[in-house]
Amino acid sequence: MKIGFLGLGNMGAAIAPNLIKAGHDVSVWNRSPDKAAALVAKGATHALTPGEASKAEVVFTMLADDAAVEGVADDILANLTDGGIHISLSTISVALAEKLTQAHADKGQHFVSAPVFGRPAAAADAKLFIAAAGETEAMDRVMPLLNAIGQKVEVFGDTPSAANLVKLAGNFLIISVTESLGEAMALVAKGGANNTKFLDFLTSTLFGSLIYKNYGALIASQTFEPAGFAAVLGAKDMRLVGAAADGLTVPMPLADLLRDRLARLVAEGNGHLDLTALSALAFKDAGLK
Amino acid sequence: MKIGFLGLGNMGAAIAPNLIKAGHDVSVWNRSPDKAAALVAKGATHALTPGEASKAEVVFTMLADDAAVEGVADDILANLTDGGIHISLSTISVALAEKLTQAHADKGQHFVSAPVFGRPAAAADAKLFIAAAGETEAMDRVMPLLNAIGQKVEVFGDTPSAANLVKLAGNFLIISVTESLGEAMALVAKGGANNTKFLDFLTSTLFGSLIYKNYGALIASQTFEPAGFAAVLGAKDMRLVGAAADGLTVPMPLADLLRDRLARLVAEGNGHLDLTALSALAFKDAGLK
Amino acid sequence: MKIGFLGLGNMGAAIAPNLIKAGHDVSVWNRSPDKAAALVAKGATHALTPGEASKAEVVFTMLADDAAVEGVADDILANLTDGGIHISLSTISVALAEKLTQAHADKGQHFVSAPVFGRPAAAADAKLFIAAAGETEAMDRVMPLLNAIGQKVEVFGDTPSAANLVKLAGNFLIISVTESLGEAMALVAKGGANNTKFLDFLTSTLFGSLIYKNYGALIASQTFEPAGFAAVLGAKDMRLVGAAADGLTVPMPLADLLRDRLARLVAEGNGHLDLTALSALAFKDAGLK
Amino acid sequence: MKIGFLGLGNMGAAIAPNLIKAGHDVSVWNRSPDKAAALVAKGATHALTPGEASKAEVVFTMLADDAAVEGVADDILANLTDGGIHISLSTISVALAEKLTQAHADKGQHFVSAPVFGRPAAAADAKLFIAAAGETEAMDRVMPLLNAIGQKVEVFGDTPSAANLVKLAGNFLIISVTESLGEAMALVAKGGANNTKFLDFLTSTLFGSLIYKNYGALIASQTFEPAGFAAVLGAKDMRLVGAAADGLTVPMPLADLLRDRLARLVAEGNGHLDLTALSALAFKDAGLK
Repeated sequence: MKIGFLGLGNMGAAIAPNLIKAGHDVSVWNRSPDKAAALVAKGATHALTPGEASKAEVVFTMLADDAAVEGVADDILANLTDGGIHISLSTISVALAEKLTQAHADKGQHFVSAPVFGRPAAAADAKLFIAAAGETEAMDRVMPLLNAIGQKVEVFGDTPSAANLVKLAGNFLIISVTESLGEAMALVAKGGANNTKFLDFLTSTLFGSLIYKNYGALIASQTFEPAGFAAVLGAKDMRLVGAAADGLTVPMPLADLLRDRLARLVAEGNGHLDLTALSALAFKDAGLK
Repeated sequence: MKIGFLGLGNMGAAIAPNLIKAGHDVSVWNRSPDKAAALVAKGATHALTPGEASKAEVVFTMLADDAAVEGVADDILANLTDGGIHISLSTISVALAEKLTQAHADKGQHFVSAPVFGRPAAAADAKLFIAAAGETEAMDRVMPLLNAIGQKVEVFGDTPSAANLVKLAGNFLIISVTESLGEAMALVAKGGANNTKFLDFLTSTLFGSLIYKNYGALIASQTFEPAGFAAVLGAKDMRLVGAAADGLTVPMPLADLLRDRLARLVAEGNGHLDLTALSALAFKDAGLK
Repeated sequence: MKIGFLGLGNMGAAIAPNLIKAGHDVSVWNRSPDKAAALVAKGATHALTPGEASKAEVVFTMLADDAAVEGVADDILANLTDGGIHISLSTISVALAEKLTQAHADKGQHFVSAPVFGRPAAAADAKLFIAAAGETEAMDRVMPLLNAIGQKVEVFGDTPSAANLVKLAGNFLIISVTESLGEAMALVAKGGANNTKFLDFLTSTLFGSLIYKNYGALIASQTFEPAGFAAVLGAKDMRLVGAAADGLTVPMPLADLLRDRLARLVAEGNGHLDLTALSALAFKDAGLK
Repeated sequence: MKIGFLGLGNMGAAIAPNLIKAGHDVSVWNRSPDKAAALVAKGATHALTPGEASKAEVVFTMLADDAAVEGVADDILANLTDGGIHISLSTISVALAEKLTQAHADKGQHFVSAPVFGRPAAAADAKLFIAAAGETEAMDRVMPLLNAIGQKVEVFGDTPSAANLVKLAGNFLIISVTESLGEAMALVAKGGANNTKFLDFLTSTLFGSLIYKNYGALIASQTFEPAGFAAVLGAKDMRLVGAAADGLTVPMPLADLLRDRLARLVAEGNGHLDLTALSALAFKDAGLK
């Protein structure tokens, strides 16, 4: 199948090769064109503009934020084949997903939201977890493509934005873990108990999942570089959660707390740190260190 | 060894038999004496007063709250053998642990904090997880007893109250999960996506631990009876977390949120529900149901 | 001067006559045309479209929200005279003010933000308080008009959106009073003391301003109808505060609390009540009534 | 009347002379005895112990906190005349007021809570505002004394702790103003508008009370020394509010926020600053300064 792929950051550059491996004809585009060379070496075509890459049956976008997706939306709409499908893999707002759904429908095209969970290494191994939603007919057509890049695809109905909401809710849960561990460990540390021992105890008993182990270890050692998931991106996600909650009239006090914590990190000039750095605020506010 | 055991509620009644099985001479006391019969049938002696049960080398307390422990403290102090050890298994305040540590030391006795994680069924199977702390010499003497009732004992140093702090921090983390899942699911539900599917997706990917599966299922179905862990007890625990945080000057905004949520449940007359009922507040505030 | 006036709700209908009294030639427009009759009786011309009213040297907008202003923006831009000025009196977002500033500049026109504080009765008496901002030259030209409708005009520099930010910050302070009084009175009431006496004591000592007296009386009696300022409008304002805070990266935990409280009122179907009804949430959560 | 007066800090030293002026025989005691000389010069007797000062018909306590009052309680109980009255002027917990009410009743004595609002200068001028509560007969007897030290006495019924609750609720309202102004001004400042102008506008319109003017000026200039009301004392008051709210099961999210803010100031080593310094946290978290 002729496929366009827009966005070759850490995630996009790891995902696109799995589509090539699956036998597709993939045309890649990136704002900084130097990222394309590695993909061309793996069999991709280098498109010089978003519009050129979008002359395809399916176009994937894996871009940094709403603005980046909006920046290429008109090119996709103008060039995607009749009946073509735009699959958005990145974390975008519910509102933008709704807008794109309408815009593609107006052109006789389709929009599918398929935001992914996983880090670049998982993407390279086609081990992503994907929350997807879109019209049944479009979903049927794209399912083989999603299965080529992920280990699990869960379909959340025929309204694309539902998948974006699920992704945002999932990121909210992930960031919540950081806040709860941060406060718990600040309390334990200031009380004189050992946090590594506390973490070992917790993760060998009730909190066995990887996220508690991995994030807990970073928080226990207060080590936030290099960033696996930069705070500034977490801040963006929490703003999107807030916008979705505002739009649906859902009060979310814990989400507010996380948004404020991350905004503070960014405002203080620490947005480049890993998002577990928000635990450092609980430590600092307790006068630790 | 001659052992006293004060408190035969759901937990105490399940723990004491494991001490009898380990070959100890156990004298049990409970405020409502009818609870003692089942233990006597298993080989315990029935003490009619806390003081009588406390004429022992080691006394365990497994009582509802600080007030209940304070209600028997003088009897224990007066009757425990010289060099004897009081082991507190229940969730009490850091301040009370510090007070009892001093009081027992003044009498040439020892105080060990060993709060337990686990439900009655785990207690009956000697599968509890135990956070313990106390003077090394006392810890060495009680370790065989703790191993007789739990599957894992983690020692947090020689200051007994450190174990209480760990227990409180652990309960805080547990209740945090409820709040984060409650808010996430209120958002997802109001946005029209299916929460059971959302939960399946999460727990098969990043949030594999039992607590997310079990609590998540209760929250997805908004089923809060019968209570595994009553909200009114969670409210008490969160007040103890708040008191510990105040005492140590550790700001804990998420803990505040949980304390308020649980206080609201209790004030509304719903303290008898399972603590996952605090998720119902996020749902209700979003106008769901 | 030839003036257009768009929006004849409670506020607009009270403001426009003061411009007529000041000798201006005022053309009014409203979405529901029946509102225009009363103004025509006072000397206004009835414009049938926003564009018709906008053929003027100055156009005022006093509309419900961002969407309403955006709905007439193109008509104003297309019809306002060269060098003309669009004065926005209503509470709109910082982002929309920035967008309109640019759009009018691109057309050789001017945009002035002049959001007002005051209720319809104050508007009718030309007793509004006005926070204004815009280019010096434009401000000089509109100052006589603003003085014709208000008792005090404070100029916050030459960036129009600064006035919107001031208005939003002011509304945030007003709503904050409601929350603080609500929590304080819930505490006092549940503790058995008399809230009317509490309020009298406060307002005769430290809290002498009208807002504490007026809001306090409504809260003490828990009387929320008829609405002076509907909760649903307060909810909108707090969303605008949140958006401004997000845009500027300013963590505002109290603003979050107010936004959640108001969202809850709206989600529960009580958005039509006065915004002091958010105090009822503190009462209800304490189990009062 | 023979009166004992315990506590000659800034407030006590300013209040006691007004009792002497009213013609009473006042015996003063202070932990640091050097404070007594100035009072002796004005006609007081210097008592060397709390017990000695308490051999009186009425004993006032104006001490720093619960612990200080508890430290002299037994001496007062043992020495106060039969039917004598203990008047507590300082901000103490609801729980301690309840305990002292019972303890004095058990001795055939009376306890009256009469916490005061006002700074030392107001105390010296007998211009305090006093919230009082106690048994009617005791209140009748002490009213002339309270009128001798304050400009307004409001009686909140016959349960002494009600007055303490009113005092705590009042302090909560005062501290709330600081938080709301802090967040509003951080937003306005980061948005580029002038805070002094913002404050002038507010206080000349809706927020005319002194507290907004005075606190607002300190916050606009971010000047927190010398402390009029030290943050560490505000932190203590907010802990008492939290304890009262816990005791009455009243969720108070704004009070939680204030308690956390003040705890953070104290933990960071800034408890000596004026409590308006909590506004600096909103500024700092926004990356200002």
